[in-house]
Amino acid sequence: MADTAGKPIDCKAAVAWGPKQPLEVRTVTVAPPGPGEVRVKIAATALCHTDAYTLDGLDPEGLFPCILGHEAAGIVESVGEGVTSVKAGDHVIPCYQAYCGECKFCKHPDSNLCVSVRAFTGKGVMKSDGKSRFTVDGKPVFHFMGTSTFSEYTVVHEQSVAKVDVNAPLDKVCLLGCGVSTGWGAVYNTAKVKPGSSVAVFGLGAVGLAVIEAAARAGASRIIAIDLNPSKFAAAKEFGATACVNPKDHDKPIQQVIVEMTEWGCDYTFECIGNTSVMRAALECAHRGWGTSVVIGVAAAGQEISTRPFQLVTGRKWTGTAFGGYKSRVQVPDLVNDYMAGKTMLDKYITHNMKFDQINEAFDLLHKGECLRCVLTF
Amino acid sequence: MADTAGKPIDCKAAVAWGPKQPLEVRTVTVAPPGPGEVRVKIAATALCHTDAYTLDGLDPEGLFPCILGHEAAGIVESVGEGVTSVKAGDHVIPCYQAYCGECKFCKHPDSNLCVSVRAFTGKGVMKSDGKSRFTVDGKPVFHFMGTSTFSEYTVVHEQSVAKVDVNAPLDKVCLLGCGVSTGWGAVYNTAKVKPGSSVAVFGLGAVGLAVIEAAARAGASRIIAIDLNPSKFAAAKEFGATACVNPKDHDKPIQQVIVEMTEWGCDYTFECIGNTSVMRAALECAHRGWGTSVVIGVAAAGQEISTRPFQLVTGRKWTGTAFGGYKSRVQVPDLVNDYMAGKTMLDKYITHNMKFDQINEAFDLLHKGECLRCVLTF
Ligand SMILES: NC(=O)c1ccc[n+]([C@@H]2O[C@H](COP(=O)([O-])OP(=O)(O)OC[C@H]3O[C@@H](n4cnc5c(N)ncnc54)[C@H](O)[C@@H]3O)[C@@H](O)[C@H]2O)c1
Ligand SMILES: NC(=O)c1ccc[n+]([C@@H]2O[C@H](COP(=O)([O-])OP(=O)(O)OC[C@H]3O[C@@H](n4cnc5c(N)ncnc54)[C@H](O)[C@@H]3O)[C@@H](O)[C@H]2O)c1
Ligand SMILES: [Zn+2]
Ligand SMILES: [Zn+2]
Ligand SMILES: [Zn+2]
Ligand SMILES: [Zn+2]
Repeated sequence: MADTAGKPIDCKAAVAWGPKQPLEVRTVTVAPPGPGEVRVKIAATALCHTDAYTLDGLDPEGLFPCILGHEAAGIVESVGEGVTSVKAGDHVIPCYQAYCGECKFCKHPDSNLCVSVRAFTGKGVMKSDGKSRFTVDGKPVFHFMGTSTFSEYTVVHEQSVAKVDVNAPLDKVCLLGCGVSTGWGAVYNTAKVKPGSSVAVFGLGAVGLAVIEAAARAGASRIIAIDLNPSKFAAAKEFGATACVNPKDHDKPIQQVIVEMTEWGCDYTFECIGNTSVMRAALECAHRGWGTSVVIGVAAAGQEISTRPFQLVTGRKWTGTAFGGYKSRVQVPDLVNDYMAGKTMLDKYITHNMKFDQINEAFDLLHKGECLRCVLTF
Repeated sequence: MADTAGKPIDCKAAVAWGPKQPLEVRTVTVAPPGPGEVRVKIAATALCHTDAYTLDGLDPEGLFPCILGHEAAGIVESVGEGVTSVKAGDHVIPCYQAYCGECKFCKHPDSNLCVSVRAFTGKGVMKSDGKSRFTVDGKPVFHFMGTSTFSEYTVVHEQSVAKVDVNAPLDKVCLLGCGVSTGWGAVYNTAKVKPGSSVAVFGLGAVGLAVIEAAARAGASRIIAIDLNPSKFAAAKEFGATACVNPKDHDKPIQQVIVEMTEWGCDYTFECIGNTSVMRAALECAHRGWGTSVVIGVAAAGQEISTRPFQLVTGRKWTGTAFGGYKSRVQVPDLVNDYMAGKTMLDKYITHNMKFDQINEAFDLLHKGECLRCVLTF
């Protein structure tokens, strides 16, 4: 046990005071973990679009002030009463998609949408007492996605932390907390891409590239990568794309371009942007008769997707994925093992490394579309 | 060979001269079958909503004058050059969804959307010469859906006719040409309903009841039947529904009613109406995490379905079916055999029998929502 166990810890964190305001890097107080909770010392955290989305005020349910961040890795500092699955010193990845193993969703073979702590993480508090563990000058600051990794120390529910190989580099495997895992899982768990099939990937950020990486590994013979920004094409090819298409180079709607390239569309299509028009395009260039289109991108609040029902009557399937369908605490450790065994390309997603204090600069990079993943260390 | 072989036949048919006009029952001339074609003497034909839809002018691609009808059974009168799979005297069901066995779709295990004759049936003509086999006073009348069963004799492509048990009653198995097969196949082939699962069925016409029948046979433990017309509920229960819901009895949106009844929604939901708002409702009450919603109903031209993408990101699947996914020429004979073996409830879908000359009365019944299926005989 660390000698901090059972005591509040004062540490550095980035506080989001309100939508569209820069984060304030300052000292916060992190209470000891309550029953069923785990306090984690974060070693590395990346930035993901959901953080930016909330900070930009696009999530009407976003709560402020809060501590954002959900793609990270760290070391358990101490655990609360009754916690058995991890102990101080364990290396862990916080998982915004919890896993309790006992709810209807955890027990179902095809779902990872655990509901054990969802009502509380959605409100920015902990389950045991309905309160936050973060305070600034004595005033509570909300948690975010049950993870709040933009803090040197954070408190998470036991259901939200995956114990991983102690030898894994935390500044790399932090990526497995969200975007990259999501792209891989969308291919393996959601679409179940078959060898020899054709795939179209819309949006070539970390998520889209992870889809390409996994589709190539699943044996897809044709992988069409689509982005408005042609500077993304080199990476897409390196990850396994067989062709790159810029919608701006065509007068026709992009779905028509892809259908014409492939005769009937692609067996699998993935939307990795969060744009509802592209979601429609992705569905409409899924193969007549059996094509599956997977929505991964998170659209702005209130936006809707639409299409002609004929697209479905003629055999297309429209679905989506959260965290790639991975049952987090069970499967994230395996993803770490795969990386340690050299099977996956994790390092290539990290285009920038910075110190935690530079977090506002990192957000600027994210907004400019110039980075895949920027990893911050303390 | 009938002594009519090779000669034109003058016979009774119902001609649709234009949208919203009553059909004219009169004499038409049916040319002999061309290469790869089959001339069938229709014994019984039912009416389906796609006929009414086209006659009401709702299909902007509907061609007039034409001979409607696609749910029928009959006996081969003669065959054209090169036809090998059927011969004069065979009992057959015309299939608007063709099967050639050779195209990409026929070869794919999960699709029945054969393209061998599609371009021609869509234009109301035959493939061998791009012409119609029907004339009235020497002027051509278009085919419809490659079947045109509202005629004592019709000509279809060899790809569009399924040979069935010669002992099967044609005035019953005619229903297997469309609606009832579609409902069954939506359950077995498209949704693949599992034992013990929960099902919601929107719309209790012949298609919806066929979904209920098949869901019960597939072992669904909970089948919720939904219709605005409570006179449909008795039949729904007889077919296997465990509960009936009238949206008019509730102030809340119907999807919310179903979600509250089931806690998280149903494992499978089916839209059997053709109403895009109901399609959305059916998706939104599919079970969070894994629920599948199948669109069967055909919506009016130009209408679109929509939903929040979050519905898909949280694991729902939205798909649809044409002719229940059955590979027509291969599987319709089996459906007939199942009926002959007493495994299916075909007779109960037939609420009315009339003579062919009463066809306009039969359409009135269909519009009033008073009949499931009305079978016309010559
Ligand atoms: N479902 C989940 O569980 C989950 C998990 C992680 C991320 N996400 C979401 O996935 C999406 C992608 O994340 P990311 O980190 O890769 O984002 P990113 O911003 O790095 O990548 C998006 C890419 O899309 C391109 N793009 C934008 N508009 C386009 C258009 N109209 N046509 C083609 N390309 C276009 C951009 O140029 C960029 O390269 C985000 O919406 C994110 O919130 C979802
Ligand atoms: N996809 C295919 O291959 C295929 C094949 C056959 C039929 N269809 C389509 O399936 C649909 C159903 O066919 P059917 O012959 O059973 O039709 P039907 O008209 O006999 O049955 C429709 C039922 O829906 C009910 N209804 C109408 N509006 C409703 C609402 N808002 N909420 C609840 N119930 C409502 C009606 O009262 C009626 O009982 C039609 O659209 C038809 O064109 C599709
Ligand atoms: Zn994320
Ligand atoms: Zn759970
Ligand atoms: Zn029909
Ligand atoms: Zn075919």
